[in-house]
Amino acid sequence: MPTLRIALAQVNSTVGDLPGNAAAIRRWSRSAADAGAHLVAFPEMMLTGYPIEDLVFRNSFVQASRRALEELAAGLATDGLGELAVVVGYVDADGPAAISADATPGAGRRDASAVLHRGAVAATYFKHHLPNYGVFDEDRYFEPGDSLTVVRLGGVDVALTVCEDIWQAGGPFTAARRAGVGLVVNINASPYELNKDDVRLPLVQRRAAEAGATVAYVNLIGGQDELVFDGDSMIVGPDGELLARAGQFTEELLVHDLDLPPAGAAPNAAGSTDAAKPSVEQEIPHDMAIDRVAIPGALAPPPERRTGQIAPRISDEQEVWTALVLGLRDYVEKNGFPSVILGLSGGIDSAVVAAIAVDALGPDRVTGVSLPSGYSSEHSKDDAADLAKRTGLHYRVEPIQPMVDAFLANLSLSGVAVENLQARVRGVILMALSNSDGHLVLTTGNKSELAVGYSTLYGDSVGGFNPLKDVPKSMVWQLARWRNTQGEPPIPENSITKAPSAELRPDQKDSDSLPDYAVLDPIIKGYVDHDLGRAELIAAGNDPELVDRVLRMVDLAEYKRRQSAPGTKISGKAFGRDRRLPITNRYREGL
Amino acid sequence: MPTLRIALAQVNSTVGDLPGNAAAIRRWSRSAADAGAHLVAFPEMMLTGYPIEDLVFRNSFVQASRRALEELAAGLATDGLGELAVVVGYVDADGPAAISADATPGAGRRDASAVLHRGAVAATYFKHHLPNYGVFDEDRYFEPGDSLTVVRLGGVDVALTVCEDIWQAGGPFTAARRAGVGLVVNINASPYELNKDDVRLPLVQRRAAEAGATVAYVNLIGGQDELVFDGDSMIVGPDGELLARAGQFTEELLVHDLDLPPAGAAPNAAGSTDAAKPSVEQEIPHDMAIDRVAIPGALAPPPERRTGQIAPRISDEQEVWTALVLGLRDYVEKNGFPSVILGLSGGIDSAVVAAIAVDALGPDRVTGVSLPSGYSSEHSKDDAADLAKRTGLHYRVEPIQPMVDAFLANLSLSGVAVENLQARVRGVILMALSNSDGHLVLTTGNKSELAVGYSTLYGDSVGGFNPLKDVPKSMVWQLARWRNTQGEPPIPENSITKAPSAELRPDQKDSDSLPDYAVLDPIIKGYVDHDLGRAELIAAGNDPELVDRVLRMVDLAEYKRRQSAPGTKISGKAFGRDRRLPITNRYREGL
Repeated sequence: MPTLRIALAQVNSTVGDLPGNAAAIRRWSRSAADAGAHLVAFPEMMLTGYPIEDLVFRNSFVQASRRALEELAAGLATDGLGELAVVVGYVDADGPAAISADATPGAGRRDASAVLHRGAVAATYFKHHLPNYGVFDEDRYFEPGDSLTVVRLGGVDVALTVCEDIWQAGGPFTAARRAGVGLVVNINASPYELNKDDVRLPLVQRRAAEAGATVAYVNLIGGQDELVFDGDSMIVGPDGELLARAGQFTEELLVHDLDLPPAGAAPNAAGSTDAAKPSVEQEIPHDMAIDRVAIPGALAPPPERRTGQIAPRISDEQEVWTALVLGLRDYVEKNGFPSVILGLSGGIDSAVVAAIAVDALGPDRVTGVSLPSGYSSEHSKDDAADLAKRTGLHYRVEPIQPMVDAFLANLSLSGVAVENLQARVRGVILMALSNSDGHLVLTTGNKSELAVGYSTLYGDSVGGFNPLKDVPKSMVWQLARWRNTQGEPPIPENSITKAPSAELRPDQKDSDSLPDYAVLDPIIKGYVDHDLGRAELIAAGNDPELVDRVLRMVDLAEYKRRQSAPGTKISGKAFGRDRRLPITNRYREGL
Repeated sequence: MPTLRIALAQVNSTVGDLPGNAAAIRRWSRSAADAGAHLVAFPEMMLTGYPIEDLVFRNSFVQASRRALEELAAGLATDGLGELAVVVGYVDADGPAAISADATPGAGRRDASAVLHRGAVAATYFKHHLPNYGVFDEDRYFEPGDSLTVVRLGGVDVALTVCEDIWQAGGPFTAARRAGVGLVVNINASPYELNKDDVRLPLVQRRAAEAGATVAYVNLIGGQDELVFDGDSMIVGPDGELLARAGQFTEELLVHDLDLPPAGAAPNAAGSTDAAKPSVEQEIPHDMAIDRVAIPGALAPPPERRTGQIAPRISDEQEVWTALVLGLRDYVEKNGFPSVILGLSGGIDSAVVAAIAVDALGPDRVTGVSLPSGYSSEHSKDDAADLAKRTGLHYRVEPIQPMVDAFLANLSLSGVAVENLQARVRGVILMALSNSDGHLVLTTGNKSELAVGYSTLYGDSVGGFNPLKDVPKSMVWQLARWRNTQGEPPIPENSITKAPSAELRPDQKDSDSLPDYAVLDPIIKGYVDHDLGRAELIAAGNDPELVDRVLRMVDLAEYKRRQSAPGTKISGKAFGRDRRLPITNRYREGL
């Protein structure tokens, strides 16, 4: 059996940064060659970044992607890496963008994978299954490919596939079995969701069985806007054995030697017995065509055996914390912001966001501002100062009362308008400091508060990035406690243990307005994340009165949001969930 | 030939308001019956409103839609309208929502049309072509139907189709020819775009030729979030003759008698000569199945001939103005807001928004606030007061200087931070008044300003609805001049003729920072709306230096927006365009 040393480059990429991404590919290809690899695979859309969304409709961008691919192939040869087979994702096109029904059907854009070898593009494959749910809109952007590309490399047949191709039975993996390949390379941009790693391994195992071949799965890492990619790259044998696995959220090269059946000898090639056929999960509409390409040259057998690690899985709290840190860091770095600023109330939410920011950027790029009012308690100010001291961030105090008083002296306001005014004066101050110093403003409202509208529009909602927007309050506490067990505790114990309060009126507590978070969060999850109706929530065991109360709060919060903020929705494309409700919607379970 | 009197109900509907929409259907069906119609057709998704977006994933909503359809059928019979054939759009389901790849393939949601007759659902049809471009995401939400429903009504074969089915050649209209139908009913939710009526008539004519049948096209009217539906319903003969056409943006019943070929005698039925075959614009992948349903009862021939109007088309300015008025009115009414509030600067943008608001809601539901600073000129204050007097809206003056001074006394700010501070103090005041009185806050920035970032985040961008967000500045002036020719001029002449200024520093003029709007707007249109790159814009005849300057401004504005406002994009789902660019995007034509 030929031995193929493959390298999975679990690396970061930036949307639109063709030169930067190409440079990263050259750098990691050098490492792969140095490790003696015959083939290195990069994630989906590595060259362009993922997701490129409407950039796909800009002809100049698509042309630039194709040009960058050819320059990259040439550059790799210049680097002396021409003999390494480099699998890389990019955007291709074989017609005008299918932006409307007027466009010629059959033309369009391709989510593509290429094999670069000896200075040229040796083979290409176009993604067959296009996901169009959750955070994915690929039916808008791409036309599906309908043939499988099989590359013969050093006597082994290798099939190319892209991401969603592995999430659906039938199609490329069935074609790969028919083609009798020894290896399927699957390049991914698969976003993080809590415990997604529990789903991935069984999925790759099912597909390896379907193809009757080893599967090499490589995933992106890094933050891109509201998405975070978690890596979790792996190699699984045709019998389902996990042979190697990279870490979560880590940038690394996973190198592993595979003894693979020579081309033509694969047990599942056409002509083999029916008994080897997989149990396929769905009806397959039609067989894909198979395009075969031979890559010239023989494989030098590796001098010694190399085995990739099988990285252990990290805890839920570490997963979420790491995703939040990486998401924030990449949002700041990919945008090129020098620093971040946030208001510090002394409460748990701003403390956790500050700790995330310091973990992401270091204390020197984080400014925390205490913005006390007449209602701020002494412990709030103390806890904010304590947090600043523990984390080492830049700290300043800007009392808001003189500005609040100026508004109150000139406008006749009462009740919630006065509460909101304080939050808005804080927003104006943070924005003024952002304008003066170029900071990105961080927002600190958690998902529970946002869902029930316990937040001030244009007040504490001011900011360009909110690490907690998809984190329920119960999880905020859990994260704080976990983080404090990792080395020096950054978060004051008092911020964790005290009863939460917005401190917008005397002696205010969250519990005056909201149910206990332990019962609130599951109802929000059902109603907002899982589209459950009132009857289903009650059937799931939630207290009927509480369900009515919470649904009313969520619906009312949506009403208030649309009164003053355009198209504001509680949960966007965050952590694998894209919620799109009509704004002026009369169908309410709670009102 | 049998004579069929058909009524097209070009009416409004509200997303999620099942009882309200059902009541409207019963009311308009009564009018159709009173006019002697045999068949009345309502728009796509009339019963649920359109678009329902993620509501489709809520099982309780889909069940409520199906229940409402059955109750509606029964209610029509109770009303004595059981003999009238009522064609109505709704959401149906024949399986769990296809929310992810894990869902059973083949199951899902249907964009459906039903014929209600004698108290029951007599026939249903599922939309075949699902649009997934521009403002449409129907591949996310629906599963395509693959059979054509043909209803025999009074001896005439009538095919049911939905919206996009008419925008693509092949599919249902080819099947309708094969089925030999005399009439195709096409129900729509087709959003307004400038001059879309110029496209629709030739489209319906092509499809009538394809089907070899008369086509009855009925479209929704009304505003729904960022979309406006413009009606433009029509009946076109198989020879392409326009037989009747409703007005634009009007709620009306278009009643027209059609002499139609009896079933089996249609010239294009299976077995007729090939010469009658249409020239089809694309390859048709497969023939749709044909389901035939007979509606019992004979048609009473109409006592006298009835011919629908052929409404003339309105001017471009009237089209846009009417769309803006209708869009705002329905946003306010469908949300149930009591009133609106906006800042009046004396400039053209806020004057036009105020005039639109007064046209939409009447002066008593509109409050204009003059918010002068130390930099506000006398003419600005006079022009704002003049506008208030002309339109009769509620007017108040709230000087901002005391609050601005309080911030300046406590923070050390200079330059653009001071300019922005003034706009933000105005935003805080408008929000305080909104909180106190329940007004919807209107934003007044035009598309040109927003695109180049000539606007303050959390300042003049505060508000829940912006009628001008998709209107370039040149068009704002054009609209103002046009509106002033319609009866008493609401807009002060001085607001139209004076040089535009933000008045955030002494003697500031837009022209200090921006190119002339006459050259700016075409570049914005090319870059933002049409995805043209730098080279294409220059090739189109724009001055290269100007192109570079404008692209840099647009790119820089996007950078500034993402620094402090989450996911803010310059153009959303407004007037038939849905732009979705990655936020942290390094591919820039202008930076």
